[in-house]
Amino acid sequence: MSSYSPRLQRLIDALRRLPGVGPKSAQRMAFHLLDRDREAAQLLGGALGEALSGIGRCPQCRMFCEDESCRYCSAARSQAGQLCVVEGPADLMAIDAGTSYRGRYFVLMGRLSPLDGIGPEELGLPQLEALLDQGWVQELIIATNPTVEGEATAYYLAELAKSRQIRVSRIAHGVPMGGELEYIDGGTLAHALSDRRVL
Amino acid sequence: MSSYSPRLQRLIDALRRLPGVGPKSAQRMAFHLLDRDREAAQLLGGALGEALSGIGRCPQCRMFCEDESCRYCSAARSQAGQLCVVEGPADLMAIDAGTSYRGRYFVLMGRLSPLDGIGPEELGLPQLEALLDQGWVQELIIATNPTVEGEATAYYLAELAKSRQIRVSRIAHGVPMGGELEYIDGGTLAHALSDRRVL
Ligand SMILES: [Zn+2]
Ligand SMILES: [Zn+2]
Repeated sequence: MSSYSPRLQRLIDALRRLPGVGPKSAQRMAFHLLDRDREAAQLLGGALGEALSGIGRCPQCRMFCEDESCRYCSAARSQAGQLCVVEGPADLMAIDAGTSYRGRYFVLMGRLSPLDGIGPEELGLPQLEALLDQGWVQELIIATNPTVEGEATAYYLAELAKSRQIRVSRIAHGVPMGGELEYIDGGTLAHALSDRRVL
Repeated sequence: MSSYSPRLQRLIDALRRLPGVGPKSAQRMAFHLLDRDREAAQLLGGALGEALSGIGRCPQCRMFCEDESCRYCSAARSQAGQLCVVEGPADLMAIDAGTSYRGRYFVLMGRLSPLDGIGPEELGLPQLEALLDQGWVQELIIATNPTVEGEATAYYLAELAKSRQIRVSRIAHGVPMGGELEYIDGGTLAHALSDRRVL
């Protein structure tokens, strides 16, 4: 008598597989969907089905893609001659929505992490090399995160470009706009100081 | 170019309707489901459909129920003559799994909150009154939460029982087992002190 009825238990179990959802919140979500927002349950069920059947990966940039031609791999974007490598789809979105960058992207879907079995193959680097070999890339912009693994990945990517005489750049790290120095961590400050610009 | 493709956006929007899920975590969940755990997406989609079509409410106790006869409203449970009123399904589960109580339940699915338009009707109190009028209830155990609204609800419920000459009890509030006095809030301590027992 100490467990939920089968369907309710299955719903709670399925919700628990979402990242960041523990047993308590899965329960709360299930009750919310059943008790207060059945419409949301219906929407979510439908959206999941549609997403599974209709969202794939662009073979060129590895971004999620549901159309014949990827909006991020257009000929117009290739003309800029720039290829920006990011760790995940959210990074791509952040750059595309928040900056004026309109070149192409390559989404690693992760970062090099040998201990977790994530090597060049898992990040699609053979595909990236094929892109670099196409000849249109004049600059590889590396926008991996400023973490230990992100930096190691950046180093590896830089070598791929350099061996092909392609210019490589790394996005700048430093004090964020509007940030106050006294609240910024030491690593960021060190970066900001060593990457200082002459005015 | 600043938004996701339609299906992906719909999935993110649907995930945002889950309680406690903001835009960032909805995004993270969607990417996780699409990139790393498509099986989970499938399970969740299926579980939602099954839950919507197969989980209803027990007309007697208001607990979620997917069978012909409610496991919490059995004749055996009625024989104890006890009816325990809780605010939500999770409370019922906590009591049933964590204690030896084997009487019946009534799930309010909320608490009295006139400002939010939640009155006796919304909590199914007419149904509760009908139960009390059946004659088998010898004790109404009120297990609403020790919040302002939970206490107000408890007071209201107690009146319903008293007007029918049914014994009413309220679960005890005090220092939790294993709790250390110095870390317990004042309200709880005051409760623990005033509800002290002679040894
Ligand atoms: Zn693409
Ligand atoms: Zn029932």
